[in-house]
Amino acid sequence: MPFPRTSHDIPTPALLLDRIVLERNIIAMADKTARLGARLRPHVKTHKCLEVGRLQRRHGAAGITVSTIVEARDFADHGFDDITWAVPLPLSRLDEVVALARRVTLRVTVESVEAVEAVARVAKAAGIRMHAWLEVDCGYHRSGVDPVLPASAVLARRLAQSEQLTFDGLLTHAGHSYSAPDAAARARVAKQEREVTTAFAERLRADGVPVPAVSIGSTPSMAAMDSLAGVDEVRPGNYVFYDWMQSAAGVCAPGDVAVSVLTTVISHQDALPHAIVDAGALALSKDPGPGDAALRRGLGPVYAGLAGAALDPRVNISHVSQEHGFLEGPEAADVRGRFRVGDRVRVMPNHSCLTAAMFDEYWVVEDERVMDRWKIWRGR
Amino acid sequence: MPFPRTSHDIPTPALLLDRIVLERNIIAMADKTARLGARLRPHVKTHKCLEVGRLQRRHGAAGITVSTIVEARDFADHGFDDITWAVPLPLSRLDEVVALARRVTLRVTVESVEAVEAVARVAKAAGIRMHAWLEVDCGYHRSGVDPVLPASAVLARRLAQSEQLTFDGLLTHAGHSYSAPDAAARARVAKQEREVTTAFAERLRADGVPVPAVSIGSTPSMAAMDSLAGVDEVRPGNYVFYDWMQSAAGVCAPGDVAVSVLTTVISHQDALPHAIVDAGALALSKDPGPGDAALRRGLGPVYAGLAGAALDPRVNISHVSQEHGFLEGPEAADVRGRFRVGDRVRVMPNHSCLTAAMFDEYWVVEDERVMDRWKIWRGR
Repeated sequence: MPFPRTSHDIPTPALLLDRIVLERNIIAMADKTARLGARLRPHVKTHKCLEVGRLQRRHGAAGITVSTIVEARDFADHGFDDITWAVPLPLSRLDEVVALARRVTLRVTVESVEAVEAVARVAKAAGIRMHAWLEVDCGYHRSGVDPVLPASAVLARRLAQSEQLTFDGLLTHAGHSYSAPDAAARARVAKQEREVTTAFAERLRADGVPVPAVSIGSTPSMAAMDSLAGVDEVRPGNYVFYDWMQSAAGVCAPGDVAVSVLTTVISHQDALPHAIVDAGALALSKDPGPGDAALRRGLGPVYAGLAGAALDPRVNISHVSQEHGFLEGPEAADVRGRFRVGDRVRVMPNHSCLTAAMFDEYWVVEDERVMDRWKIWRGR
Repeated sequence: MPFPRTSHDIPTPALLLDRIVLERNIIAMADKTARLGARLRPHVKTHKCLEVGRLQRRHGAAGITVSTIVEARDFADHGFDDITWAVPLPLSRLDEVVALARRVTLRVTVESVEAVEAVARVAKAAGIRMHAWLEVDCGYHRSGVDPVLPASAVLARRLAQSEQLTFDGLLTHAGHSYSAPDAAARARVAKQEREVTTAFAERLRADGVPVPAVSIGSTPSMAAMDSLAGVDEVRPGNYVFYDWMQSAAGVCAPGDVAVSVLTTVISHQDALPHAIVDAGALALSKDPGPGDAALRRGLGPVYAGLAGAALDPRVNISHVSQEHGFLEGPEAADVRGRFRVGDRVRVMPNHSCLTAAMFDEYWVVEDERVMDRWKIWRGR
């Protein structure tokens, strides 16, 4: 098959990536982070793409963050040599961690006695030192040590004094910034994220525990962050693409969303109040989108055109099966006669991280022109 | 790394496939279909796995059904030569359809004038005949022609008389069998599915339109099917694995579910009412499970042991982020002290089709022993 020239030629369902918007998002976050005086270690779980990672690096990113050891290995195989795995270390992956730590600077995340002991044990057996962050719970309450408990300071001291481990410092993730309903709420989360973590670092230092660095920062909290005093690096990920969740919450404008799912109308029966497109759960994911139900637009809102168009106010992807998406609005007239079998439609993903993980590649576009095709390293 | 010997050694998150249960499910459906006098053309979208497809073929399957052209190509590349693509044909994939139809018997599905004209046009240009099913809406109301409308008989006649197309017959999918709450409701759907489709076939034949075959059958409707009179083949898919949705609805017993997600506890902070496992949205999918909210168990119920155990009545995966699953019950005591960092836990997927599509491979097990590793062909 010839290489597609425009988005009219791409086999669907396909994931489009707007190169101009992508680079603008990357530069904006790099600028903000530099202005606030911290390093940027972006989370690549959103894009899983070497080309996007290289663009982030070209615009100043220092190291990357990953969510799986497979991502870490894929990026290490292609020249990324300073990698933080920002998930509490699964003890079932210790062999792979040791193997990768021999090749690059791999920084694992620990927050339990069990994990600290296990990493120290395998490092000793391998005859290497391993880098480790201590995860702190800044208020999200998913994982991480509670900074007010005495046991947390004990664990930090143990890390700092370990002969097998290099203590990298304190790392936190303010995942509750994603459910903050507005900018004021995000600002409160951002303040808490920074203050809880830097205050714990200061207490540890006052107690004689050296804390080399403090690492914070999600996309929504970075949008509201007005100071990074005491913070050494930030790890946002979603900002490269954004999505309907971020757009609906006001973290970005709809025009800042860099990815969209290109899909084809495959059915539009007169007797039925919807059209069917070839983007289902395995293209869009089943992420329900905004936490606030009033902002939900089914499995994703739909653009009024193939490029440069605003969102169509009348229709959404209301629900999906595995490879089918239901395109519909409140009234049958929102669809009837407007969509023909063979028409192409673009969908804004609810959650770009999950949508990107459904595809093997990005079709990189500028307006409707196809510029390139970039692989998505979605191995598990 | 050495090949894992038991499920204690497998890197997590991992998808386990119980070979004994799998083969029992495959044989049971093959037996039932044969007993009712029809052919079995199983849907491989559930497993996307050559070894499972070969096992189905060994037990009598005649051809396969796919949901994407990529699945069709992957299976065609490995000896499967009679393939139905049971989704209304996306006109963006016509080039690939023609290319594959030159190699194997590829049967596409059409239900619009636009699709019939497009397939006939490319078949003529390529100098080949193309096989096509006409999709009928038997009551699910997703896609397919309405059998009571005169235009539907006109379209069938046009297919049957086409010089470029070989009309394969009528195909329907009773997707509403998945939301039928009990066996009686499933039996009503099964009866409707069969009767609507065979009655339309009879009317067409009476009008002089030859209808070579009638193809119906989903996993829930096949569970309730007591006659396949007038039906030539059935296309269930989920039955190879089943899942919590099928189990909760009573289509199968919990012990018939052949796949489970093996995951490791990565966090269990005293201050928090949950444990965190390394199976999140990209392992379990975000499928909410049973339509009946009373039967939901979050993103999946949890087994009380690694092999041979029943479901743990106290805990579920309550929610997920990308790579984190929250393991919790109604009370903090349901978790506290019961799960340690490093422990392994098995999760029953809500929806096995979507969960399998998240992984690259099955770890084939018998009890806790690892027997083999089978690739999941999840290309898009």
